[in-house]
Amino acid sequence: MPMYKELSNGQKLSEYNRLKKQHAAYCAENLALDMSRGKPGPEQLDLAAGMHSCLAEDDYYSSDGIDCRNYGVLDGIPEIKKIFADILDVSPGEVIVGGNSSLGMIFDNIASNVSHGVRDSIPWQKQGDIKFICPVPGYDRHFAICDYFHIKMVTVKMTPAGPDMDEVERLVNHDPLIKGMWCVPVYSNPDGCIYSDEVIRRIAGLTPAAHDFRIYWDNAYCIHNFRGERPEIPCILRECEKSGNPHMPLVFTSFSKISFSGAAISAMAASVSNCDFIRKRLAVQSIGPDKLNQLRHARFFGSVDGVYSHMTKIADMIRPKFEAVIETFENNLSQSGVAEWTDPSGGYFISFTTLPGCAARAVSLCKEAGVTLTPAGSTYPYGKDPDDSNIRIAPTYPTLCELKKAMEVFSAAVKLASLEKLL
Amino acid sequence: MPMYKELSNGQKLSEYNRLKKQHAAYCAENLALDMSRGKPGPEQLDLAAGMHSCLAEDDYYSSDGIDCRNYGVLDGIPEIKKIFADILDVSPGEVIVGGNSSLGMIFDNIASNVSHGVRDSIPWQKQGDIKFICPVPGYDRHFAICDYFHIKMVTVKMTPAGPDMDEVERLVNHDPLIKGMWCVPVYSNPDGCIYSDEVIRRIAGLTPAAHDFRIYWDNAYCIHNFRGERPEIPCILRECEKSGNPHMPLVFTSFSKISFSGAAISAMAASVSNCDFIRKRLAVQSIGPDKLNQLRHARFFGSVDGVYSHMTKIADMIRPKFEAVIETFENNLSQSGVAEWTDPSGGYFISFTTLPGCAARAVSLCKEAGVTLTPAGSTYPYGKDPDDSNIRIAPTYPTLCELKKAMEVFSAAVKLASLEKLL
Repeated sequence: MPMYKELSNGQKLSEYNRLKKQHAAYCAENLALDMSRGKPGPEQLDLAAGMHSCLAEDDYYSSDGIDCRNYGVLDGIPEIKKIFADILDVSPGEVIVGGNSSLGMIFDNIASNVSHGVRDSIPWQKQGDIKFICPVPGYDRHFAICDYFHIKMVTVKMTPAGPDMDEVERLVNHDPLIKGMWCVPVYSNPDGCIYSDEVIRRIAGLTPAAHDFRIYWDNAYCIHNFRGERPEIPCILRECEKSGNPHMPLVFTSFSKISFSGAAISAMAASVSNCDFIRKRLAVQSIGPDKLNQLRHARFFGSVDGVYSHMTKIADMIRPKFEAVIETFENNLSQSGVAEWTDPSGGYFISFTTLPGCAARAVSLCKEAGVTLTPAGSTYPYGKDPDDSNIRIAPTYPTLCELKKAMEVFSAAVKLASLEKLL
Repeated sequence: MPMYKELSNGQKLSEYNRLKKQHAAYCAENLALDMSRGKPGPEQLDLAAGMHSCLAEDDYYSSDGIDCRNYGVLDGIPEIKKIFADILDVSPGEVIVGGNSSLGMIFDNIASNVSHGVRDSIPWQKQGDIKFICPVPGYDRHFAICDYFHIKMVTVKMTPAGPDMDEVERLVNHDPLIKGMWCVPVYSNPDGCIYSDEVIRRIAGLTPAAHDFRIYWDNAYCIHNFRGERPEIPCILRECEKSGNPHMPLVFTSFSKISFSGAAISAMAASVSNCDFIRKRLAVQSIGPDKLNQLRHARFFGSVDGVYSHMTKIADMIRPKFEAVIETFENNLSQSGVAEWTDPSGGYFISFTTLPGCAARAVSLCKEAGVTLTPAGSTYPYGKDPDDSNIRIAPTYPTLCELKKAMEVFSAAVKLASLEKLL
């Protein structure tokens, strides 16, 4: 089969009719496959089953003698701060441990900066129509936070090495209303790329027109390699110190896809001065996060090495799923020339690119056949992909068997949508 | 010994010298007793020891089949919603389950109203210098939230039946900048009073000048009776419905002083329309609270009856502590006529009143002798008690033996501070 665009109209029509029949056959199978979110599969969660009972009834003291059952300790017990510090390559004094969701910590940090300003400077809300740099395609929940706080989203193209830094510098270094930038530096969502050292140093070296500019460094996937070595990137806190911007980065991560997604713990890392400022808010906001869950995590993993060893087990579960998707795409789509996809070494997503104007239609065709994907457009602010060509594939939740089926349905849908466009 | 005010100056001086010596003797004992916060004692926490292991490794499905280990479910699994609904005498559809701190839920609700308005109305921050009604004495953390959001605090006197409603009506029904009111209706903090049915109906019947007025009904102690029957008060949601103000009340409670203070779960109750609005924010803010901890609580307590039966065990531990404090006060202070105190049937505090201008001095004398109390003034906005006479006593954390000692030191300190004033 030659590339679709090289086919005659008659050949296109014949291929179209063949795919139409195949799609109808899929629809008749009454499938119900959900690939809409980057959720761990149940077998991944089973790996942490020991956490249910790893705290004995009389095991509730932290290493510094705090009764973790009672009130107190705003920012985390020492043993869990240490593990997060080791994961993020920072010192424990630069870590604040949060509740069960790093998204919640990010939301709260932005809420704080909007209403109270960064480190007691002028609140963002009093500075006019502020903006964030949003590399695209990107993470829909980041965009939803911007939308919620009426923060304008300025899109910048992602490259395989990270955001287009010429564009980022042009914008950030000249517009004082640009107050923030979203970054998922390792296994970016959805491309799965790792920011290059050069891109990271250029981010750290930004000279923002806004003195209260913040980098939201969402390092959710920093140890989620499933192929090859754990990626090592320059530490954004250290790089920003070197460039004289120590308070610019805010780093976030969590155990959400490591222990139990819905019952994990999150953390952030920032300059000591940023942490001091954040603790002032925490002191008003809460009497401290769940310390027993912190202790549970510390006991179950023991140390950062325990976490790494757990991650290799998770990697062995995730790798075959990504491989199955890539293999299905290669078998079904390579020859038609109507799609491209990333082949990441970690993270939770594959970024899939259709011909312009075909993504929403492909997702909709899948829906008809009982395969739910992340809505087309959701990788762009306001859910609007200007090219209608990007689709985020989330392979982790379904079983291998379901996944292969879903990706066959999807491949057929992409080809069908493409031919509708080409005919 | 007659009342201090009836003593001659010479008698006062002699009593002063006696107490001065006694205080010096206490100081020499090198005590280190902390009664600064309303923390459960370790023996209360021991009662929930079974929670550490009440989830078996394969026990992670909620009653509606949700895998509680994974992402999802914004506002709580059915079984825990039901328990909270039963505790608060509302329907499960009026309940939103939160993280480990009801204070955090309250903070977030106010943050939301400040930045986004109640149910999509004009944000409070765009309406000028807004104010809250603060019954005094009251809870320092409520006042701290107001202070953080630059909400002016309008104080209203507490009576044994609740806030002075003549004053509340005069203020709320005429000032559109008054947007909220703090209420701790059962075992108010620190007085320990229960709002009368009449007061509750008058609160529900307010006709606020502000259409976006909200009652913050912090029902933290609703089932924390340690003497007599569990108090039954009219349900504020139902009363506000009857008076045509269904969206006015926001009810908060938690398991913080029931299971593990630092690792519990919180909940709020409100009109369905309020809940819908809050869920919109939650959908941006988080991927849901810790459902395994919800399941753990549901399994451990089983039902609201399980919670009630647990509370009787807690009551048996707390009652002797309150009795010891009251007895020490009666023995040491009744005759001097320089102090009054409440004798509540539940909750976590005794409200203690010195002669005007003596509270800070008494707390400071205790500190010298190694007994840390809640700072004088903390029951008033900005930490400023205009009479310098209220002290919050928190009897639950120390052992009975420590408590008796601490209250003897405190009684002597109060008398000494009073004589300094009277001489």
